[in-house]
Amino acid sequence: MTPFEYQPHTLVMSKEGLADLWNRFSRERAVTETLAAPLTPEDCNIQSSPEVSPTKWHLSHTSWFFEHFVLKPYLPGYREFHPQFSYLFNSYYETVGAFSPKSTRGLLSRPALSEVMEYRKHVTDSVQKLLGEPNPKALEAAPIILLGINHEQQHQELLLMDIKHVFASHPFRPTYLATEAETVTTTKGPEFSWKTFPAELYEIGHEGQGFHFDNEGPRHPVYVGEYALKSGLVTNSEFLKFMNDGGYEKPELWLSDGWNEVKLRAWKAPLYWEETQSGWKSMTLSGLHPIVEAAPVCHVSYYEADAFARWAGKRLPTEMEWEVAAETTRRDGNFLESGKLNPVPLSGPKANFDHLHQMWGDVWEWTASSYSAYPGFRPNAGSLGEYNGKFMCNQMVLRGGACVTPLSHIRASYRNFYSPSARWQFSGLRLAEDR
Amino acid sequence: MTPFEYQPHTLVMSKEGLADLWNRFSRERAVTETLAAPLTPEDCNIQSSPEVSPTKWHLSHTSWFFEHFVLKPYLPGYREFHPQFSYLFNSYYETVGAFSPKSTRGLLSRPALSEVMEYRKHVTDSVQKLLGEPNPKALEAAPIILLGINHEQQHQELLLMDIKHVFASHPFRPTYLATEAETVTTTKGPEFSWKTFPAELYEIGHEGQGFHFDNEGPRHPVYVGEYALKSGLVTNSEFLKFMNDGGYEKPELWLSDGWNEVKLRAWKAPLYWEETQSGWKSMTLSGLHPIVEAAPVCHVSYYEADAFARWAGKRLPTEMEWEVAAETTRRDGNFLESGKLNPVPLSGPKANFDHLHQMWGDVWEWTASSYSAYPGFRPNAGSLGEYNGKFMCNQMVLRGGACVTPLSHIRASYRNFYSPSARWQFSGLRLAEDR
Amino acid sequence: MTPFEYQPHTLVMSKEGLADLWNRFSRERAVTETLAAPLTPEDCNIQSSPEVSPTKWHLSHTSWFFEHFVLKPYLPGYREFHPQFSYLFNSYYETVGAFSPKSTRGLLSRPALSEVMEYRKHVTDSVQKLLGEPNPKALEAAPIILLGINHEQQHQELLLMDIKHVFASHPFRPTYLATEAETVTTTKGPEFSWKTFPAELYEIGHEGQGFHFDNEGPRHPVYVGEYALKSGLVTNSEFLKFMNDGGYEKPELWLSDGWNEVKLRAWKAPLYWEETQSGWKSMTLSGLHPIVEAAPVCHVSYYEADAFARWAGKRLPTEMEWEVAAETTRRDGNFLESGKLNPVPLSGPKANFDHLHQMWGDVWEWTASSYSAYPGFRPNAGSLGEYNGKFMCNQMVLRGGACVTPLSHIRASYRNFYSPSARWQFSGLRLAEDR
Amino acid sequence: MTPFEYQPHTLVMSKEGLADLWNRFSRERAVTETLAAPLTPEDCNIQSSPEVSPTKWHLSHTSWFFEHFVLKPYLPGYREFHPQFSYLFNSYYETVGAFSPKSTRGLLSRPALSEVMEYRKHVTDSVQKLLGEPNPKALEAAPIILLGINHEQQHQELLLMDIKHVFASHPFRPTYLATEAETVTTTKGPEFSWKTFPAELYEIGHEGQGFHFDNEGPRHPVYVGEYALKSGLVTNSEFLKFMNDGGYEKPELWLSDGWNEVKLRAWKAPLYWEETQSGWKSMTLSGLHPIVEAAPVCHVSYYEADAFARWAGKRLPTEMEWEVAAETTRRDGNFLESGKLNPVPLSGPKANFDHLHQMWGDVWEWTASSYSAYPGFRPNAGSLGEYNGKFMCNQMVLRGGACVTPLSHIRASYRNFYSPSARWQFSGLRLAEDR
Repeated sequence: MTPFEYQPHTLVMSKEGLADLWNRFSRERAVTETLAAPLTPEDCNIQSSPEVSPTKWHLSHTSWFFEHFVLKPYLPGYREFHPQFSYLFNSYYETVGAFSPKSTRGLLSRPALSEVMEYRKHVTDSVQKLLGEPNPKALEAAPIILLGINHEQQHQELLLMDIKHVFASHPFRPTYLATEAETVTTTKGPEFSWKTFPAELYEIGHEGQGFHFDNEGPRHPVYVGEYALKSGLVTNSEFLKFMNDGGYEKPELWLSDGWNEVKLRAWKAPLYWEETQSGWKSMTLSGLHPIVEAAPVCHVSYYEADAFARWAGKRLPTEMEWEVAAETTRRDGNFLESGKLNPVPLSGPKANFDHLHQMWGDVWEWTASSYSAYPGFRPNAGSLGEYNGKFMCNQMVLRGGACVTPLSHIRASYRNFYSPSARWQFSGLRLAEDR
Repeated sequence: MTPFEYQPHTLVMSKEGLADLWNRFSRERAVTETLAAPLTPEDCNIQSSPEVSPTKWHLSHTSWFFEHFVLKPYLPGYREFHPQFSYLFNSYYETVGAFSPKSTRGLLSRPALSEVMEYRKHVTDSVQKLLGEPNPKALEAAPIILLGINHEQQHQELLLMDIKHVFASHPFRPTYLATEAETVTTTKGPEFSWKTFPAELYEIGHEGQGFHFDNEGPRHPVYVGEYALKSGLVTNSEFLKFMNDGGYEKPELWLSDGWNEVKLRAWKAPLYWEETQSGWKSMTLSGLHPIVEAAPVCHVSYYEADAFARWAGKRLPTEMEWEVAAETTRRDGNFLESGKLNPVPLSGPKANFDHLHQMWGDVWEWTASSYSAYPGFRPNAGSLGEYNGKFMCNQMVLRGGACVTPLSHIRASYRNFYSPSARWQFSGLRLAEDR
Repeated sequence: MTPFEYQPHTLVMSKEGLADLWNRFSRERAVTETLAAPLTPEDCNIQSSPEVSPTKWHLSHTSWFFEHFVLKPYLPGYREFHPQFSYLFNSYYETVGAFSPKSTRGLLSRPALSEVMEYRKHVTDSVQKLLGEPNPKALEAAPIILLGINHEQQHQELLLMDIKHVFASHPFRPTYLATEAETVTTTKGPEFSWKTFPAELYEIGHEGQGFHFDNEGPRHPVYVGEYALKSGLVTNSEFLKFMNDGGYEKPELWLSDGWNEVKLRAWKAPLYWEETQSGWKSMTLSGLHPIVEAAPVCHVSYYEADAFARWAGKRLPTEMEWEVAAETTRRDGNFLESGKLNPVPLSGPKANFDHLHQMWGDVWEWTASSYSAYPGFRPNAGSLGEYNGKFMCNQMVLRGGACVTPLSHIRASYRNFYSPSARWQFSGLRLAEDR
Repeated sequence: MTPFEYQPHTLVMSKEGLADLWNRFSRERAVTETLAAPLTPEDCNIQSSPEVSPTKWHLSHTSWFFEHFVLKPYLPGYREFHPQFSYLFNSYYETVGAFSPKSTRGLLSRPALSEVMEYRKHVTDSVQKLLGEPNPKALEAAPIILLGINHEQQHQELLLMDIKHVFASHPFRPTYLATEAETVTTTKGPEFSWKTFPAELYEIGHEGQGFHFDNEGPRHPVYVGEYALKSGLVTNSEFLKFMNDGGYEKPELWLSDGWNEVKLRAWKAPLYWEETQSGWKSMTLSGLHPIVEAAPVCHVSYYEADAFARWAGKRLPTEMEWEVAAETTRRDGNFLESGKLNPVPLSGPKANFDHLHQMWGDVWEWTASSYSAYPGFRPNAGSLGEYNGKFMCNQMVLRGGACVTPLSHIRASYRNFYSPSARWQFSGLRLAEDR
């Protein structure tokens, strides 16, 4: 038995199956490289804070992942690209071996970006060789390749999150994406309604044969009381009301740890917001632009999301409530593929705002649920067991994907997680209430 | 409507009711003072780490609680004992007013211990006056007095936890409790069995009119799959096996945050354990003594409890599983009242070890549940809303009480909580498994 | 040969010599105890910052000094008071043995203050026994007893500096010395003149048989160019002008390290100054009082002294310049013996202000000299070599004594030293200029 | 009057004078660029610790220096290269304007290395224009250009120190200089003798019209007692004896601050030394090589130099002693121009070892003197007054230049200075003793 339940046996038993896997693999490899293309070698080397990784590191680590978990065990005669790359580009797999401390990733001037691109080619070509024709090794490797493809997609999002932080840290506020700024609308956005769900013994967690991470399973029953979700995300306009009402100065709105963070970090607005003589602006991947009032608020911590909800007299949904609701909607929205790389206002006829909107894409939605194991959770076998399970502490779950997440990467059962104080991910919120 | 659902209306409508409340109040005030009695004025002033409070501070803060929340609003003509005590002895109620930073409590040489004892008497006498005979103010105040009594009990436990830390930090390792050391038994303790509970839609949370904290309610349905609990607590003997098997050196056993803590703090054993030429000893309130192998392991963090469970091939129970099981047992065990102030081995005929043991007392049991709001949670009204709710982040739930907890303080629905890295509370663990 | 050059042979060869030594010893022991008398046991236990020591620790350490360096080697049959006191009360003598970290002195609730007073008596009585009648051991011990007496005096000053810090850290701002506040004078103080000294090859350093510390010798030639000293100290009035002129906001006035400190610590005034609605006040050993404008400024760091001098277009004197000038004056002023424990304005007929004033007492005067070894410096022998020599780095020299220094302790050659950022000593400044 | 006393009036009054200045300027600009040539764009961006600057920053800052202090005030119509470069590349001149924090220099991916090279060209060409033919502005600017040339040379040394640190921090230990490793000699090096100097009233400080920094003057008398200097530098062989004798474990050898540093940083050898299975090696600009026993020890802090001297029963020379001795020798040795970039053993006939050797080059020699103002010191006028004066605190003086210092940059009166804990400069020591 292999560590993955989503055994795509049929996939790899046929030439077509292999070809399909190769297509998905090579497409995602290319996407990553396209995302890095606008950057200079120096841009690709910067680590602007300990939790940020340089672009070059993302390019390398995603290759190391295939090299270590796929090529070395499954491709006979595979030649490791460089004997020290495992030390440099292993992220956190303690059981694989020693690795360089995360905080020192920005010190790695070597290998050069050009050498990293050769490394990527070497790995991509080797996977092509492995998948060249049906063989038992390819059969065994296929689920791990599938995992690696999804891992690569996660690093596409991380690459964008991180380069945004890098550029926001630079006095020049450089522009990653050369686009026209969104027209500033003073519209406050649509008036959303509430969507109610009855009390019931539901089931959540991943179901079926498709790919999913270990932390999404097993599917299991959960009792959920009657509740309602707001039909849209909290907007910048609403968040400005919270700010203007002294939201960042009233301890009674905050969790104790959140209030400490507000004081320690002198938070006064979401991350990347800057107060200027012409009002609030925020740094985006297209540079510094005025706040778009009708767009979903983004780059708030769990603490800010929670404080906003308390201020509004509501609460955050649990991840169960979110998933139950999400299963009733169509997976569609503002994802990486749109190329906007920024959350956008909801548009359309007002009548529609009674339905659930923006459940997918735009911003990850903070939930009230801490990240923990589902009943019967079984981590991946071997070192890949470190992928998700060991982080099940001190993190909160986010759901739904963001404008920098690949659409093909997301699912209703997908569980993202961050520390409650983290803000550099594209995170926002949706309100919930008891009924 | 008042903030407390456990309205003891009948209690205070009668002379007997008032007398009973006064009896409980005055008894707990006296217990606190008895616990402080063996200490010198200097002992009572020490803060051996930022999370530890001096004994004198506990004596004062519990008085401030009654003064601020009961006497000032409800006793006509009440004279505040000292105008600056609210600044000194408010713990964390932001909505009450400014307070001195927690880390500076050890710097308060003034008021002297003797003055603090006068403060206590002033407050106790004033409450006696308020409860002297039935009156509308006493009616209103009664639920808050009841809360204050429970608050006082929490600080009895904290006082003991903290003075243990103070004495363990002193090169002399002073003795708080002059008792004979437990005879060192080399017995490994009883062979426990497993107790199984069927999958079902259970209910948990506090039910009925009795006193409970806001965080214990409301009672609500939860679906729990089939599971089993070990019939006894993990012992020092078992924990030594984990240590001897390299438990503290194997990253694969640990949560990521836990492993960071192990390395940062150089953890090699539970808190207060010291390796000596004659083997492991541990600091107790009776001084430094050899480890009692059959006794429950104590002073482990959540990370250590979790790592032990993983090493043993089991897991920690959730708080729902613990509560469901606890409701089937009798509330009885080694509590503050035993005067032992240390967890003790289970004794008795072997046949009994098939039943659940030690669910109550000895050590708080870490659960796999992070501390969060129950569905429909409603915090206390006003400033007392800060009592529990604002800590619902980054904490894990512990259940069952310890050898320093008053028996009358504990309930099946009682939710204690600590940071996963905390170790100075009397915390141990019980194993669980899926069935 | 013994480590001390000031061999008081004649002193100890006679009964009178011994009696004189005993008188000096017992007097200083009593002074220390008198200084501690107004304090409660809890006051005596507080360490309000890492560089501050509790009063109890000063009382103990000065006893340990005699016990370790005098009684154990020289009094036959001496019984150590407590086997662990050397660990607790050794300050920094690495070659003596392990000692508890300085930052943990405030955690020592044991021994109790009462036990410390017994320790003092035990040590004092034992020294009396040693000095009871002329004997070879007393002869050998005498110079070390003399050193110990001077050491005890240093801790008298430290005790007062430290308790001032302790009380200033307490929200109550308790009063150590019950005196009338100085009448607030709005006089800006006398108009001082300048006193010029010619360029010459001078000699500095201690000369003769009297007691002195190893760092004061050997006497040696130094060439000093023509210079002038201001005839009085910089006053609070002058320092307020510096503050009002933006002294704390102009980087060009500050050393680079000083400017960093200003920003990091948010310095806006000398230590212990508080801006109130009725103007600037400062904490004194008599409580919080309005600034006395004509009094010498006190509790400034080297950085502030240096910045003030630059602002004034002058400079600080070197320690050579100070010593050369001091040798022309009479050792007299506001010392510990005055009982004021606070610097005071100079008074007297205006005509006198042409002479050098306040060279002695009131405040230690920062010099422009870093603390380093004199040519030919030879530290004390043995562990006492750690007394002064190992601190000859990163410290600046201060001269002249302060209002908390015993008059009998000070000399023209006396070299006090502190880190340039330290402010809790009674330090002020006098201006100098080239001629 | 201009800020520089070394007015090279005659120099710039003539075409030849201007041509000569231009030649020196353009040569040093080229040297800096040659030093950066072996590095990749990514290498040039790395800041491996807060005190290290990226190569790119050195290249830019030295250009900014000319732009701000020479071109903007003296070249009519000069066009600033980039409006934000003053913010990015001002190092520490508070009176010039705001500048980016030193610790963030490694985050500046923009401007790219290529753009920085354009900036350099723009500045160099503009200076050429200014010096094109005799004119009053060039006359005024000449002394500042001379200062800028010397400033550029300082950054040549810093560039090499810093890139050595960058490469030593990289797991690959990359090689900057492709040379053959020095043949490992087991020779312990020559047996040096002592050179004595009589007690006398000497003069030190810069004399004459040549260029010098403000901190080298004014020349002034100093009385120096009789002393002797060792005729050569302390070697690796000697330092290994200190290490093998437990030098890093004996607190009695160390200054108090030094001993704290030893424990805090776990120092066991000089910086860049690594213990391997084949013995001690050290990182050099030519990669990791075995220790050359006869070569001067390098990369020791002041604390280590001082501890070694104490262990050897000697002391460090004062800067006066060093300068007096240096004035008797010829300025010659292993400097930047040798291209070795590493200190080398002294070679030659044994008879010569009676004379002073290695006073110049190889390693900077720590002196016992703290860095302070000479009597009558007058800083440069204007913002250039911040060049040296504001660092006159908490630093020790080093003399004589190192293998990474340009020969033309050094003088007998030259005062280098570093914090006593700094080790990344090329620093060693020479012993002295009293006579």
